[in-house]
Amino acid sequence: MEGVFHNRYMSSRPDEGGPGIVLLGCPLDVTSSFRGGSKFGPESLRRASWTLETYSPYLDLDLDEMALFDAGDLELPQGNLPASLDRIEASAAKMIAPGRKPLFLGGEHLVTYPLLKAVKRFFPLFQLVHFDAHCDLRDEYEGEKLSHATVMKRVRELGVSRMYQVGIRSGTRQEFAELSPAHSPAALAEGLDRDIPVYVSFDIDVLDPSVMPGVTTPEPGGLTFREVMDYLCVLKGMEIIGADLVELAPDYDTTFVSSVCAAKVAREIVMLLHSGIK
Amino acid sequence: MEGVFHNRYMSSRPDEGGPGIVLLGCPLDVTSSFRGGSKFGPESLRRASWTLETYSPYLDLDLDEMALFDAGDLELPQGNLPASLDRIEASAAKMIAPGRKPLFLGGEHLVTYPLLKAVKRFFPLFQLVHFDAHCDLRDEYEGEKLSHATVMKRVRELGVSRMYQVGIRSGTRQEFAELSPAHSPAALAEGLDRDIPVYVSFDIDVLDPSVMPGVTTPEPGGLTFREVMDYLCVLKGMEIIGADLVELAPDYDTTFVSSVCAAKVAREIVMLLHSGIK
Amino acid sequence: MEGVFHNRYMSSRPDEGGPGIVLLGCPLDVTSSFRGGSKFGPESLRRASWTLETYSPYLDLDLDEMALFDAGDLELPQGNLPASLDRIEASAAKMIAPGRKPLFLGGEHLVTYPLLKAVKRFFPLFQLVHFDAHCDLRDEYEGEKLSHATVMKRVRELGVSRMYQVGIRSGTRQEFAELSPAHSPAALAEGLDRDIPVYVSFDIDVLDPSVMPGVTTPEPGGLTFREVMDYLCVLKGMEIIGADLVELAPDYDTTFVSSVCAAKVAREIVMLLHSGIK
Amino acid sequence: MEGVFHNRYMSSRPDEGGPGIVLLGCPLDVTSSFRGGSKFGPESLRRASWTLETYSPYLDLDLDEMALFDAGDLELPQGNLPASLDRIEASAAKMIAPGRKPLFLGGEHLVTYPLLKAVKRFFPLFQLVHFDAHCDLRDEYEGEKLSHATVMKRVRELGVSRMYQVGIRSGTRQEFAELSPAHSPAALAEGLDRDIPVYVSFDIDVLDPSVMPGVTTPEPGGLTFREVMDYLCVLKGMEIIGADLVELAPDYDTTFVSSVCAAKVAREIVMLLHSGIK
Amino acid sequence: MEGVFHNRYMSSRPDEGGPGIVLLGCPLDVTSSFRGGSKFGPESLRRASWTLETYSPYLDLDLDEMALFDAGDLELPQGNLPASLDRIEASAAKMIAPGRKPLFLGGEHLVTYPLLKAVKRFFPLFQLVHFDAHCDLRDEYEGEKLSHATVMKRVRELGVSRMYQVGIRSGTRQEFAELSPAHSPAALAEGLDRDIPVYVSFDIDVLDPSVMPGVTTPEPGGLTFREVMDYLCVLKGMEIIGADLVELAPDYDTTFVSSVCAAKVAREIVMLLHSGIK
Amino acid sequence: MEGVFHNRYMSSRPDEGGPGIVLLGCPLDVTSSFRGGSKFGPESLRRASWTLETYSPYLDLDLDEMALFDAGDLELPQGNLPASLDRIEASAAKMIAPGRKPLFLGGEHLVTYPLLKAVKRFFPLFQLVHFDAHCDLRDEYEGEKLSHATVMKRVRELGVSRMYQVGIRSGTRQEFAELSPAHSPAALAEGLDRDIPVYVSFDIDVLDPSVMPGVTTPEPGGLTFREVMDYLCVLKGMEIIGADLVELAPDYDTTFVSSVCAAKVAREIVMLLHSGIK
Repeated sequence: MEGVFHNRYMSSRPDEGGPGIVLLGCPLDVTSSFRGGSKFGPESLRRASWTLETYSPYLDLDLDEMALFDAGDLELPQGNLPASLDRIEASAAKMIAPGRKPLFLGGEHLVTYPLLKAVKRFFPLFQLVHFDAHCDLRDEYEGEKLSHATVMKRVRELGVSRMYQVGIRSGTRQEFAELSPAHSPAALAEGLDRDIPVYVSFDIDVLDPSVMPGVTTPEPGGLTFREVMDYLCVLKGMEIIGADLVELAPDYDTTFVSSVCAAKVAREIVMLLHSGIK
Repeated sequence: MEGVFHNRYMSSRPDEGGPGIVLLGCPLDVTSSFRGGSKFGPESLRRASWTLETYSPYLDLDLDEMALFDAGDLELPQGNLPASLDRIEASAAKMIAPGRKPLFLGGEHLVTYPLLKAVKRFFPLFQLVHFDAHCDLRDEYEGEKLSHATVMKRVRELGVSRMYQVGIRSGTRQEFAELSPAHSPAALAEGLDRDIPVYVSFDIDVLDPSVMPGVTTPEPGGLTFREVMDYLCVLKGMEIIGADLVELAPDYDTTFVSSVCAAKVAREIVMLLHSGIK
Repeated sequence: MEGVFHNRYMSSRPDEGGPGIVLLGCPLDVTSSFRGGSKFGPESLRRASWTLETYSPYLDLDLDEMALFDAGDLELPQGNLPASLDRIEASAAKMIAPGRKPLFLGGEHLVTYPLLKAVKRFFPLFQLVHFDAHCDLRDEYEGEKLSHATVMKRVRELGVSRMYQVGIRSGTRQEFAELSPAHSPAALAEGLDRDIPVYVSFDIDVLDPSVMPGVTTPEPGGLTFREVMDYLCVLKGMEIIGADLVELAPDYDTTFVSSVCAAKVAREIVMLLHSGIK
Repeated sequence: MEGVFHNRYMSSRPDEGGPGIVLLGCPLDVTSSFRGGSKFGPESLRRASWTLETYSPYLDLDLDEMALFDAGDLELPQGNLPASLDRIEASAAKMIAPGRKPLFLGGEHLVTYPLLKAVKRFFPLFQLVHFDAHCDLRDEYEGEKLSHATVMKRVRELGVSRMYQVGIRSGTRQEFAELSPAHSPAALAEGLDRDIPVYVSFDIDVLDPSVMPGVTTPEPGGLTFREVMDYLCVLKGMEIIGADLVELAPDYDTTFVSSVCAAKVAREIVMLLHSGIK
Repeated sequence: MEGVFHNRYMSSRPDEGGPGIVLLGCPLDVTSSFRGGSKFGPESLRRASWTLETYSPYLDLDLDEMALFDAGDLELPQGNLPASLDRIEASAAKMIAPGRKPLFLGGEHLVTYPLLKAVKRFFPLFQLVHFDAHCDLRDEYEGEKLSHATVMKRVRELGVSRMYQVGIRSGTRQEFAELSPAHSPAALAEGLDRDIPVYVSFDIDVLDPSVMPGVTTPEPGGLTFREVMDYLCVLKGMEIIGADLVELAPDYDTTFVSSVCAAKVAREIVMLLHSGIK
Repeated sequence: MEGVFHNRYMSSRPDEGGPGIVLLGCPLDVTSSFRGGSKFGPESLRRASWTLETYSPYLDLDLDEMALFDAGDLELPQGNLPASLDRIEASAAKMIAPGRKPLFLGGEHLVTYPLLKAVKRFFPLFQLVHFDAHCDLRDEYEGEKLSHATVMKRVRELGVSRMYQVGIRSGTRQEFAELSPAHSPAALAEGLDRDIPVYVSFDIDVLDPSVMPGVTTPEPGGLTFREVMDYLCVLKGMEIIGADLVELAPDYDTTFVSSVCAAKVAREIVMLLHSGIK
C-alpha cells in the first residue's frame, strides 16, 4: 500500500486482545436535553490526537513506550436506547481482562451506567472520581430514569465505595445536598484510598466553555486546562481499572480546539491507566 | 406589558381551538444515522419567519387574511422513542377537526408515521405527496423497523391511496424500484385526483444543499427553491388535510438561510392548506 | 393548547405589574463603532437560559422561589436614535414601582443613559457599579455626544453619588485618569456604602473574550467567569434599584457559549435584585 | 518600501480626480430591520477582488485597460442618520464630473436616496435599473420615512424617467401592485431607451441566498449568478451615469463566497460604466 | 475487535494490488495563491462518503458490485515541493497496472502534473477532460513555472492528444484564447474519440460556490451539481485510464456540504472508471 | 480623496525609512504539519488593530507619541521555499538601521530563521526571548531540516548568547531536555542581562487556545492574556533590536478574537521596541 490513514488514536495499534490500554468508542447520543452531537466525539478526538506529541511533560511519560490499542467505535442501534445500553455493557465486559485497561470514549454521559455495570462484575469494590460541570444526580429527568442527567444517581445505586466529584457547578439544591465534592487536587489526594482501585468518569464539560465550547451543555465557570491537569496528576501510579471520557460534541466548535483538548485529556488518562499497572 | 416577543410564527395567534390553520412542533430527534439537530427546527423556523412578508407573490395570498394559530412544541420524553411516537400521534389526533388544518413541524422524518396514523383515523382515503431527497422506503435500517430511513415504507403499510414522490435522488436500487415519482409539476398535476384529499409530507432536504445546508443528511443535486414553488403551486385549491415539514437542522447553517427557506416553504404550505378550505 | 414555547427567560411569567423582578429587552443597536448585532442579545439570552438550572450554588438561591416577570422586548424605531432613547426612558420609568426591580437587557451600552435618566426621577441618590472592558468616559466619539463610548460620561453628568468601575482595561490616557476603579471584590465591598441604593450596569465584555467572544468590541485581558461571580457576590443583600446587562452580540459566537454566559450572569443579577428586597 | 498592501480594489489606483471609474464606500448601517453588518461590505469586497482576474469573459473587457480609482470609505457619524445622509450626498456630488463614473459601495440600501439626490442635480432625466429581492416601495416602515424598506418610494418621489425592477420576490400586495418589473433580460433590453442615461442600483440580495448568504435579509428564490450576468450584459455600451452595489453583510458568510460574488458583480459594473464612455 | 472505523471510502477495502478501482490521496497543499487547506480534502471526502448510498440513480450502478480499494494518503515532505512532486509521480506509476484504475484525491491541482507524467509512461496517447473554473493555462504564475495556475500549460507540454475543458469561467484574455472548451454535454460527447482512452482531471471548483464553497479559490457562476452529472454521464462506458479530483478545501465549509458533494462526484467517477473496464 | 482606508496598523504611517518602529509582514505559509493559513495573519492583525485604543494601560505608553511605520507585506514566491527564505532575509536586513526597530509579522514560525540570519549580521551578540507552546527544537521534522518545528534548533546553530523560553508545553522528551525555560516573569527578569540587546520571537500559540484558537497548531494549557502581559512588562526599557509575531491563522477563528489578541500583543511589542530606544 502506498498511503497511510490517520484514523486511530496516535501511537495506537489495532486491538489484538493482549495486555495494554484499549480505547473503545461508545457513540451513544440519544437523551440530550439541549443539543446533541456527542456521537461524533470519538472520531473527532482521534483525528485531533495527531496534532499532539506522544510525550507528556505533565506526567513525564510517552505513549510510544506503552502498549496502546484502538478498538474503534461500537455500532449502536439508532433510536433503540435499551438495546444500545445492553450492547455497550456487553462490549465493555469483554474489554476487561488481566493487564488490560479500557478508556471508553463517549458519546453522552449515560454510557457510564452500562460501563460501570460491566466493571462491577469484576471489581465489586472501587472508588469513583467524577469530573463534571453538572451533578447528574437527579432521580429522574423529564420523566425518564435513564438520562445523562440521572447517570450518577443510577451509578450510586450500583454501589460505589467512595465518590469524589470535581468541578461541579450546576444542579438543583437537592443535588448539591447529595454531592461528594473534591474542592482541590489536595483534597482529592487526601480523600482517595490508595489501596482501592479507581474508575475515572470524565465529562469533558468540566472544562470551562472558553476552552471547551464543543459540548452538549456548556456551563460557564469551569476549570482551566491546567487545573484539570493538576487533578489528574493526583492519580499517577494508582490502580485505575478503567475510565471514560464523554460529552464531546465536536461540530459545535469549528475551531477544532475542543477536540484537541479532549484528545490531550485522553492522552493523560491513557498514561495514568498505564502508570498504575504493576 | 411594555414589550413584545417574536416567538410564534409571524401573523399567528395562540391556538384556541377554532377553525383555521394550526402549527404544531414535533421536535423528535432520535434516529438520525448521520448528524442530528432537527429538534431545533420548529423554534428556528418560527424566528426566521419574521424576516419574511405575510404576502406571497407565488400564490397571491396573504397570511393576514387567514386564521393561523401556533400551538407551540410538543414536549417529548427524551430518549424514549415509543412514548414519543405515541405522544405525537395522540396530539395530532386532537388537532384534526372540521375546519382545522394542521401543519406539523419536525423534528425528524419519522414523525410522519405517527402523524399519518392519526390522520388515518379520520381520513381512510387520501393521496400522499412526498417531497424528499431520499426514498425512505427501506424495510429496516441498521436493524430497526422505525427510522427516518424506513418511514415511507411504514406509511405505505398504513394504506395510502396514491403516492407521488418529488425530488428523490438517493436510495438503494431496491428502493428506486418501488418509487412512485412525479418528475415534473405537470406530471404531479396530471397524476393527482382532485376529488381525493391530499396529505403533504415535505422533507426539507428535497431542496439542494446549496440553499439548504442545515439538514441532517444533505444530498447534492436537489431542487432549487423556484422549482419547489412550481410543484407547490400545483396544489393550490385542493383539499389538503394536513402537512408536515421536517428535517431542518438549523445549527449546521450559521448563515440562517436554511431556516429562512424553511419558513418560506411553511408560509406557502399554510396558504395551500387555507386555499383548499371550502 | 398541545405544545409549549420557550420564549421567556426560564422560570419567568408574563409581566402583570405586581411586585417582583422584571426583565425588559432594550434592543438598541445603532452607534457601534466596530461591529453591531446587540439587538439580538435579549432574545438569545432568553433562549440560552433554558440550558441552565434555576438554582445558583454561588448565591444559594433559586429562581423558582421568587417572582420573576419577563416583559419582552421594546419595539424601537429603527434608525431614529432620539426617538429610541425617549422610548427606552419612558418605558423604564413605568417599570420602577415599589417592590419592583428591573433588569434591562441590551442592546448597546448607550441604553444605560436613558435608563438612568428614568431611575434618577425616583432615586436622586444612588451608587453605580459599572462592569466593563472599556472606560466609556469620552466626552464625544467621532463627533457625537451620544454613543456607546461616551455613555458613562453622560451618566456622570446626571449626577451619581459614587461610581465603582470593574474590569476596565481599555481607554485613552485621559479616560484612565478619570476612572474610579475597584481592583478587587474586597475593594468593592469596602468602597460601597451599604446604606445607599445601588444600580448595576454590566457590559458583558468585562468578561474575557475567551469565554465571551460574542460582543461588539472584544478586548483581551478580561475577567474570568469565576472572578465576575466573586464581584457579584459582594452585592448580595444590598438594595439594588435596578440593573442592565448590555452588549451581547450573539451572532458572532456560533458556539452559543456567549449567550449561555450572559444568561447565567442575568440569573445571578436577578437573584441579587431579589436578595435586597426587604 | 519593502512590502505591499492589498487594500484597494484590484487594478485600481488612488483617486486623483481625473477621468475614469471611481469607487467610493458608503458604509451606512443603521436602519436594518433584521440583522446589520453592511458597513463591512466595501472593505470585504475589496479584499475579495484579489481572488479574481482582471479580465471578464462575459464582457470581453479587462480592468487593466481602463482607468479605475478607489477613493476609500466615507467616514460617517455613527448613529446620526440625518448627518450621514447629508455627508453621502455631498461626497457623491463631488464624484460626478465629465468623464468620471462612480460606483458606490454600500452599506445599506438607503444610501441610494442621497446618492440619487446628488445625481439628480446633474442629470434631471435618467432611467433606473433596480436589482433587488425586495420591492423597497413602502411609504414608511416601522413609522419611519427613511429606511432600507422605503428607499425606492423616496427615489421615485425624486422623479425618475423610467424604472425597471429585476429579481423582486418579496413585498406587500400593495408594493407588488406598484412594481415595474423586467421579467427577463430581453424585456429589460426592450424597455430601456438607449438615448437616456441609466443609473444602476444593485442590491446584492437579488442573488439567491444559496450563493449570497451574506446579506442583511436573505430571501429565497433569487437569481443565479449567471442570470445576473445575462441582465448586466444588456447594459453594455449604454451611457451609465453611476451605480451602487449595496447590502453585502460579509460577516454572515464565513466561506467568503458572498464577498467574492459581490466583488465579481462590481467588476462587471465597473466595466459597464467604462463601456458607455464615448 | 469490538468496534469499527469509518476511515476508508465507503464500500472500499484496503488496497491489495489486484484488479479494481484504487483511491490514493495526494495531499499536496503548497502553491495556492489565495487560501490553502486542500491537504485535508481526501480525509474529509472519505468521511463524507458514509452519508451517501452505494447506488447511483444517475448511472444505475452500485459500488457494492465492483472492486474498490482505498490506499490511504501519501506522506509528503512538508514544504519541499520538488520532492513532493517526485513522490506523487512515483506512487502513481505503481498504481497503474492491467485492470487497475486509479482515482487520485487532491490536494491542489498541481498534482495533476506528476500524475500525468506517470500516466504518460504507460499511455502515450490519451484525451484529457478537464473540469475547472479556471483555465490554469498560464506559462508562469508569480514567477513560478510549477503552480496550480500553470498546471494545464505544463500538462499540454507533456503531449495530450485532445483536451476538452468544461465549466471554465476565469482566466486572462490570453488563456481564454488558448482554451479548448466543451460548452455542453452534447459538445463533449461529439468531440470525444471513443477509441482513445480518457483521463479526467476534475477540479471541484467547477461547481458553483453556492454548493461548493469549500475550495481554495471560489469563482461565482459555476455549474450546478446536476449539470456536472450530465457531463459525467457522457463518459459512461468509455475507457478511462485514471482520474483526479482536486482542490477540496473542506475547513472553509462548516456545513460539510462541500465534502459531501465531492464524495458524490468521487462515487460517480469510480463508477465511470469501472464502467469502462472490458 | 473623499474616503479613507484602514489598511495599515492603527496609528502608523507608510514607511519612509527614517527612525522609528517598522512593521513588515512576512506571509510565509508552507511547512505547517497540521493546518495552514498563517499567510493571512498580517492583514487580519492590521484590521483588528482598529478596534483597540492607541494607549496601553499596561505600559502607560501611547502609540500616537511614537514614530510607527507600516511597510506592508512581502510578496513571496508561492511554493518556492528557498527563494522565500532568501527574500525574507534580504528584506529584513534592509529594515535594520540606526534608530529603527522592526516588528515582523508572520506567517509561520520558520520566518524567524532568515530574520535572525539578517539580525546576526548587525548584532553578533543578543539574547533571545522565545514565547511558544512548542519547543521547536527538533533537528529535523518529517525529513526536513527547515520547518516550523525545527526553527529554534536552526536559530541556536546561528549562535545566540542566551535563550529564555516562555510558555512551552509541547515537545518530545529530547526537546524538553534541551529547553531553556523561564517559568515566571520574575525568573525571566532575573535571567536577562540588561546590557545585552534582546530579540523577541513571539509565537502567538503561547496563548491558551481558549483566547487564541486561530493558530495552526492549538495546544491546550497555555498562558492567559494577562500572564503574557506580565512577561512582556519585564522587557520595558530594555534594548530590543527587533521582534517577530508569528503563527496567527485568522480564518480558523470566525469570532475575530484571535486577530484582536494578536493586534494587542503587537501593540505592546511596538511600545517595548520604542521604550528601549535611548
